[in-house]
Parts: sequence; structure tokens; C-alpha cells
Amino acid sequence: MRQFINTREALVTEAIDGTLRTAGGRLARLDGYPHIRVVLRTDWDKSKVALVSGGGSGHEPSHAGFVGQGMLTAAVCGDVFASPSVDAVLAGILAVTGKAGCLLIVKNYTGDRLNFGLAAERARSLGLRVDMVVVDDDIALPDLAQARGVAGALFVHKIAGALAEQGADLDQVGIAARRVIDGVVSIGMSLDTCTVPGSPKEARIDPGKAELGLGIHGEPGIEQVDFTGARDAIKMVVDRLAPTIGSGPHVALLNNLGGTTPLEMAVLAEELVRSRIGGQVAWMVGPAPMMTSLDMQGFSISLLPVDDDDLGALKAPVVPWAWPGCLAVSEVATVPLPDGLALVQPVASQCDDTRALMVRACDILIGAQTMLNALDAKSGDGDTGSTLASASRALKTGLDRLPLADPTQLYRAISQELSQTMGGSSGVLLAIFFAAAGDASASGRDAVDALKAGLARIQQVGGAQPGDRTMIDALNPALDALRDGLAGAARAARQGAEHTATITDAKAGRASYVAGDQLAGHNDPGAEAVALLFEGLAKGA
Amino acid sequence: MRQFINTREALVTEAIDGTLRTAGGRLARLDGYPHIRVVLRTDWDKSKVALVSGGGSGHEPSHAGFVGQGMLTAAVCGDVFASPSVDAVLAGILAVTGKAGCLLIVKNYTGDRLNFGLAAERARSLGLRVDMVVVDDDIALPDLAQARGVAGALFVHKIAGALAEQGADLDQVGIAARRVIDGVVSIGMSLDTCTVPGSPKEARIDPGKAELGLGIHGEPGIEQVDFTGARDAIKMVVDRLAPTIGSGPHVALLNNLGGTTPLEMAVLAEELVRSRIGGQVAWMVGPAPMMTSLDMQGFSISLLPVDDDDLGALKAPVVPWAWPGCLAVSEVATVPLPDGLALVQPVASQCDDTRALMVRACDILIGAQTMLNALDAKSGDGDTGSTLASASRALKTGLDRLPLADPTQLYRAISQELSQTMGGSSGVLLAIFFAAAGDASASGRDAVDALKAGLARIQQVGGAQPGDRTMIDALNPALDALRDGLAGAARAARQGAEHTATITDAKAGRASYVAGDQLAGHNDPGAEAVALLFEGLAKGA
Repeated sequence: MRQFINTREALVTEAIDGTLRTAGGRLARLDGYPHIRVVLRTDWDKSKVALVSGGGSGHEPSHAGFVGQGMLTAAVCGDVFASPSVDAVLAGILAVTGKAGCLLIVKNYTGDRLNFGLAAERARSLGLRVDMVVVDDDIALPDLAQARGVAGALFVHKIAGALAEQGADLDQVGIAARRVIDGVVSIGMSLDTCTVPGSPKEARIDPGKAELGLGIHGEPGIEQVDFTGARDAIKMVVDRLAPTIGSGPHVALLNNLGGTTPLEMAVLAEELVRSRIGGQVAWMVGPAPMMTSLDMQGFSISLLPVDDDDLGALKAPVVPWAWPGCLAVSEVATVPLPDGLALVQPVASQCDDTRALMVRACDILIGAQTMLNALDAKSGDGDTGSTLASASRALKTGLDRLPLADPTQLYRAISQELSQTMGGSSGVLLAIFFAAAGDASASGRDAVDALKAGLARIQQVGGAQPGDRTMIDALNPALDALRDGLAGAARAARQGAEHTATITDAKAGRASYVAGDQLAGHNDPGAEAVALLFEGLAKGA
Repeated sequence: MRQFINTREALVTEAIDGTLRTAGGRLARLDGYPHIRVVLRTDWDKSKVALVSGGGSGHEPSHAGFVGQGMLTAAVCGDVFASPSVDAVLAGILAVTGKAGCLLIVKNYTGDRLNFGLAAERARSLGLRVDMVVVDDDIALPDLAQARGVAGALFVHKIAGALAEQGADLDQVGIAARRVIDGVVSIGMSLDTCTVPGSPKEARIDPGKAELGLGIHGEPGIEQVDFTGARDAIKMVVDRLAPTIGSGPHVALLNNLGGTTPLEMAVLAEELVRSRIGGQVAWMVGPAPMMTSLDMQGFSISLLPVDDDDLGALKAPVVPWAWPGCLAVSEVATVPLPDGLALVQPVASQCDDTRALMVRACDILIGAQTMLNALDAKSGDGDTGSTLASASRALKTGLDRLPLADPTQLYRAISQELSQTMGGSSGVLLAIFFAAAGDASASGRDAVDALKAGLARIQQVGGAQPGDRTMIDALNPALDALRDGLAGAARAARQGAEHTATITDAKAGRASYVAGDQLAGHNDPGAEAVALLFEGLAKGA
């Protein structure tokens, strides 16, 4: 089994029950399991025209997903890709039809026509007013007298649903439904077949091929075509649709047949709008899964010419969530990039002590390159030394540009330099460290507190805590001791760095992917770098 | 290529543009293509706390699909499964952040943490108030200090979004976001890997296996487990979740990882409610695709303990369509089957003439069985004769039960008999024919008009027209001539039946699937049956 189901037999009933339980009390079903599977509104008082649709399952959210105020009154659910029985349809009709009557919306398949048709007769013989429309929107085979009903049925559900909700009578609703059916055209395209529950998937479509003009029951398309991408796919579909439509504005319903990703659907929407009929696509429903064919990786486009009344009906709010709305198609709105993206070059200033400190710090790290690389090779990719050394070289080269006399600006400038010159996660983390120190300094903190603020921030952003075997294990005690002088800070950093050699369950950074016994006995290279830095600075102080 | 895309490079920008064009003017993007891909609200005035999220693409509708009133203010979109750049995040922050400040909602991946973190620092250095929370809801590896962020992020978007919309300040929004992050736990399961655009799909999961505890970037789950069905899948997931939650009521977010059908998702919802923690699942978000992993056939469950405030925030209406709502989980509501389903047995009555006519008609069709079967074998499955003969035999047997003296009731009774005893489409069609004749008779039409009403109805329901090579080609002229007597009707039926032998482009019924040259020269068996019936009746009259 390759589906999240229990048994093929129980699939539809269990799925309906799952749908009902999670519908917030809006939906009920008739008590006719297993054969009669009818989903209906719990808030229905039969005072208006009822709309009943349905057919085989496997097209979800059609049809139960569209039951609710403003759309269907009831959905009659057959087995996967199989028409519901006459009794099931009749039960649905009888359950929801009052004096205002009932419109059956049926897609053009023999089984559905006959079973809904006979159920309608039986309901009429019981005195109910029942009308029935047959949706045949598929244009894949233009000469076929019996065109299939596909996703265009959604237009009928929505427009008839809005009219019924407004209190239109059965004749008016039927007339509108027939007008929509006359106007709507649809065609589908797919890159893959669907997986019928309990059956292996048919590998019918070769790579580089697509099927054009397929139905919603896994049946082959009218032809296999070469597939080169989304633009060409839309062109082929539009070439079929264009000759069948008039010159006015249309609503396009862009339907996901099930297994197409939202990314792909959005690209198809973009290509449809850019296509030669794009100027006529004034409104769009979707892209969204509305009339699916299980997990088929495909799409269909349905086009409906609309007047203001139809538009109003399509835009009327509805309760069923599955309806994605009917929205005006617009140009892509762009907003200019905001100011502040460009790094502001600090105003350079001089301070001999600061310059000397920075040069010493950089030289210490440059000198430790080989040793740190070797240490890093025990637990990582052996580049800690090189990364720190090249950043240090770049920083030394740029000393003349830096605001050495202004600690706040200097922290921020170092952050900018590191974000541009130092690769890897550590470059971003040190850039964050100095940026946060700059902010703290700006708000009046002294150097030690500013650096501690930087440390707190990289713990927050990076997620590493003391004891995780990172540079924090040396930096944290060093900063705690720094107010009493560099010598104490250096001793604390060294102690912290040596301790990392005993930490074998690294919790952050690359070492967390390395087995503990490979880490034992080796200092973390980041912590070692911090210790070397403070030791070197203390020596020179 | 097996995706509806143009190029991998242009995929994200084209998809964003498609999303914007079909958003009804609600969304814009920054003018920073191709590197800066930020989707933002067009109705945003910076008067409230801004919420910025994002990350790699491939998780749609996350994140752009949740931009809008009540949820995110902006989404920063990286390449598929890749973090956006620091500049892109900073651009997003700067574009939407006013005096009220900005909350960054980041999922716990190193790239996202660092890039959002550094962007936050740069924004702060420009004087903006920026807070950042990191979502780490995945419990797949309970001992991992750095748990991944998965679909639980939606709870943060929604609850923080509702608070921000209500005018809460940045501290309040941040506190709420952290509280949600502390509370939410998630785990995923999958039957298949995802297809990364431009790359072949990895076949990692064998049939009969599933992956438990996977992430949303195609990475393997923490273990492969035996897969036996939806119930067991939910049990395994619940066994991981249950030890991590408290005893109170929870909201469950049931997320489709992309390629799971709505049928499967509904079954999973049902199983979750029936599971051992079902009693605690008081509300549900979904099932719906919210945080997908391209086309992965899998799901995830996120659980959040909630108080009334959180519930209010989760239920608050929002503009983004992708949010499926947060609904109370309920029992399955059932409605008793309506009256009228059971066929009403007619009150038997006697009429010798009618009885004689029916016996003759049945005998004619019984006698024609072999001949009609042979004719049907030319264009169908060779059972027209048998089907009509067995229905006729059953009808003869039941004559004593029929209301022979009441034409209206007789038509309806014949309809019932045929719907129960005659198989195939023709059985349903003839049942419809007699039911509609009964309705017409009930409204005062005479026999000929009643039968014509029946004919009109089967044309409407069945979709066949004169000339389509069906029984209608004989029945239609026969009924037209019937008012002048059976002899004329028989001649007309015969002429119509003979004409079907010249129709080689059948448009309805099974013959429409048969090549024309195989049909030529053979009468349609249904039309032939009608002709034989009228000829036989005329002879006996």
C-alpha cells in the first residue's frame, strides 16, 4: 500500500467522516452508510432552491468540500471514480428539497446522467420539483457530441449557488446554470497519471512528454505531446481554448489536478496571464485544487465569459473554504527597494591605541592559522584558521577606513567588514556579535558590557549555549573576567578552551555531527582561537 | 523536465509574479529581482507591529501565501530549500517596519537564523525595533538541542498575526510568539520523497515502508518504519507526540506535505480524532497544505495547548486564503434517511386489454432475443436481446402485482420493475422513460403524449438525439405516427431502424466507440427491438 488509507472499501466513508469532524459542525451526512454517502449542510431549512451535485470520489475538494452556504446544499459521493447509486442520489434529493425545488448539477458521464436522471424521476413521482443540468465543458475532442464534464462545473456550482442563496426560484437558477454550461470551455494537461487507491500507478507518460486533453478519471489524453516547460504547456492549452471563446473578458478557473506543486501552479498562472489570451483573462479563480483527479500532476483551465451579474455571483462570499475566491487579475505591483540596504561607509577617525590593539589581535589570529586549521580538521573541515586569518588580513588592510576613535561606530564598522569578507556561519555570527555590541555601545554601555551584549545576541541567534563546545565556552568566561584585566580574561578563556576538549556531545556547529570519541582530547577550534587571542593580547598589554 | 516550470533559475521569481497577479491586488513585491524576493501587503501603513517570515521556497503556501491582514506583513523568499540572503531579509524588514517595530519569525535552520539574525542587527543599527523568534517545533529527535522548525510555525504566524492586528506592541507580540513556540510540538511522516525542480526524484522509500520524523527539505526521516495503513501511521505519530504534551485540550494542525490527496488527508484526520489523544484534539487547523515540501506524499501533525486567548487569535478571521481556519472538532453528525426511498408497491388492478397488450409486447421481445443478441454483437457486447428478454420475462411474472387499470400508476410501476430487473444503461433509460411517462400521464396527457414525454426525458438525460444510432431513431418516428394507429407506427419504426444501418458515426452508447465501417449495414439493435415490437403489436392488433 502506498496511500494513507486503511482499506479501499472504507476509504470514502472514512474520508467523509474525517471531513465532517473537521468542518466545525457545518456538515452532516445521511445515516445510510456504507452505500448512501450524502454530505449536507446542517444549517439548511429547505426554504430556498437546493443544489445537489456529486459523482465519483477522487475529485476532492469536489464535491463535499463545496457544500455550504452559497454553493452546494448536498453532495452525493460514489466510490472512487464511480457514480453513486440511484438510491443514494434520491436520498440526497429527498433530504434537502423543499417547496422551492432542487437543481441537480451533473457532469456528463453516462453513469452520472442515468443515476441522477432516474433519481430525479423518482423524486418527481413523489411530488418534488427537480431540474437537472449536465455540464459538458471539456473541449479536448471538439467533434464529440458527448463532451465530458470537468472543472467548469465549479462555475455552475458557484453561480447557481449564489442565485439560490439570494432566493432565486428554480427556473431562474436552472436558466443561469444552463447559460454557464453553454459558455464554459475547459481543457486539461498532465505530466503524470494518477494513483488509484489499491492499484499500482500506470507509467503511461514518458519523460519529456505530456498528455493534452485528458479527463479527470485517469483516462489517457487525446494526444501525447512533447513537453518543454510551463510556457509551452500553456501555449498548447491556449491554442485549443482560444478558437472556442469570444472576444470579451473571461474568468479563468485554474485547477490543480492534484499533484502539482503550488510553485508550478503559480508559474502556470503567470504564463496564462502572459499568453495570447492573457488580455481576456480579467479575473481568476485559483490556482487551487478544485476538481482533482487524485494525485495527478496536471492542471486544467476553464474559461467563462461573464457579465456583471455572473461576476457578482462568482465574487459573492461563501462558507466552503475550498472555494478560493474570484479575484481580478492585475499587473505585478512592485515597491521600490527601501533606503538603508547599502552599507553606510563610516567616517574614518584615528586612535593609536585602538589601532595597535586591532593590529595585535589580527596578527595573533593570522599567526594561529595553521594550528587552528589542524585543530579544526579533527572535528570539521579544517578551515577555522584560514577563515579567521583572511578576515584578519582584510581588517588590517582596511584600518584606515575605520572610525577608530568612536567605539560604537567601530563595532558597527567591524561588523560590516566581517559580513563582507568572512565566509561561513562564523563570519555571520561575528558580524552579529559586533553589530549587537555597537547597539549596546550606542545606548551607553561600556566596552565589556557591549561585548557581553554581542555574546548574548549570538547565543540567541546561533542557538549555542555554554557547554555546547563552541567559541562561546572561551568567550563567555573571558568577558566575565575582562573587567579585572586582560590577564584574568586570558586565564579564563584558556580554562574554557581546555574544557571543550572534554565535551564529547557537541550541540551546535559542525562538531555536533561528529562522533564524541573523535572530539575527545581536542579543544574546539573556535574556543582555542578565543583563548589564543586573549592570551596574545594580555602578553602584549 | 517533469515539472510545470520554465527554468530552475526563474522558478521562484515567476511563481511569485504569478501569485501577485492572482491576488486581486492585495500583494506586491519589492523591486529587487532576481536576488531580493520579498512579498508584502499593499494595504500596509506601518502603524502596527510588522511580522516578517520567510526562508527557502518549496514550502508553499508558506510563506507568501500567508501574507495579508491578520497574518504576515511580508515574506522573504529564498531559492528552493535555500535561505534568503541577509540583504533580502533586511530589505523586507526595512520595507514594512514603522515605529511599532517588527517581529521576525524564523524556523530553526542555521542559514535562516544567521541571515535573519544579521539582517535584524543591521536593521537595529538603522534605528529600527526588531525582535526575532526561532521556531523549533520538530520532536523527531527528542535529544537534539537544535530541533527543526516545521509546520508549527503556522501557529506563530496566526497568533502573533492576530495580536499585531489588534494593535499589541512588539513586546506583547514577542512574548506570545515565544509562548507558542514553547508549547508547540510537531512530527511528520511520509511515503515518498519530494521532487526537487530540475533534479530526478530520489527513490529512497521502498513500498511497504514509510519515513517517520522527516523534515521539510527532503532530508530522510529519523527512521524507516513498516507501513500498513492510515490507522497505524497515525498511531506511530501519536506515540511520538503523546509523551510531549500536557493533559489539556489542544489544537491540531494537520498539514499536507504536498502530494497527499485530500481523500488521504481526510482519512488521517478521522484517524487522529479516533486516536488515543483524540479526546484532547478539541480544534483542528486543516487538513490542508500549509507548510509543504514540494510534492512530498506525507503529512505532519502539530499540537498546541491553548487557552481562550490563543483560541480567539487562531479563530480570528484573516485575509490570506491559504489559512484554512481553526474549527472545533465534533462528532460525525448524521441525519436519518429521508422517507420515500423505499419503492411504494402499487395497488394491483385488472384490465384485460392492457394485460394482453403487455403479454404480447413481452413475448415479442422474448422471441427476438437471439436475433437481437447477434445484431448487438456487431457493435457492442451482444447482450441487447438477453437484457430485453429477461426484463420482459420478469415483467410477465409480475403482471398480477401491477395496477393495470390505472395508466399513470402503471407507467410508474413499469419504471420501478425495470429499474430493479433490467441491467445496464438501457434499464435505467427505460425506467426513466416510463417514470416520465407516468408524470405526464398524471398531469392529464394521453398515452401518446405521455410516451412522447418519456422520450423527451431520455433524450435529455441520456444525451442521445435522433440520428445518433440509438433506439430513439425508431422510437421517435413511431411515436410521431402512433396517433394514426399501430400500423403506421410500425412502418415508421421499421423505416427508422433500417436507417440506422446507414449511420456510421454513432454519437451515443457503446457503438460510439466502434469504427464506422464495422457499423455499416447493421441496424442498431435498440432501434431494431423497437421496430420488432411495434411490428409485432400491429400484427396482433
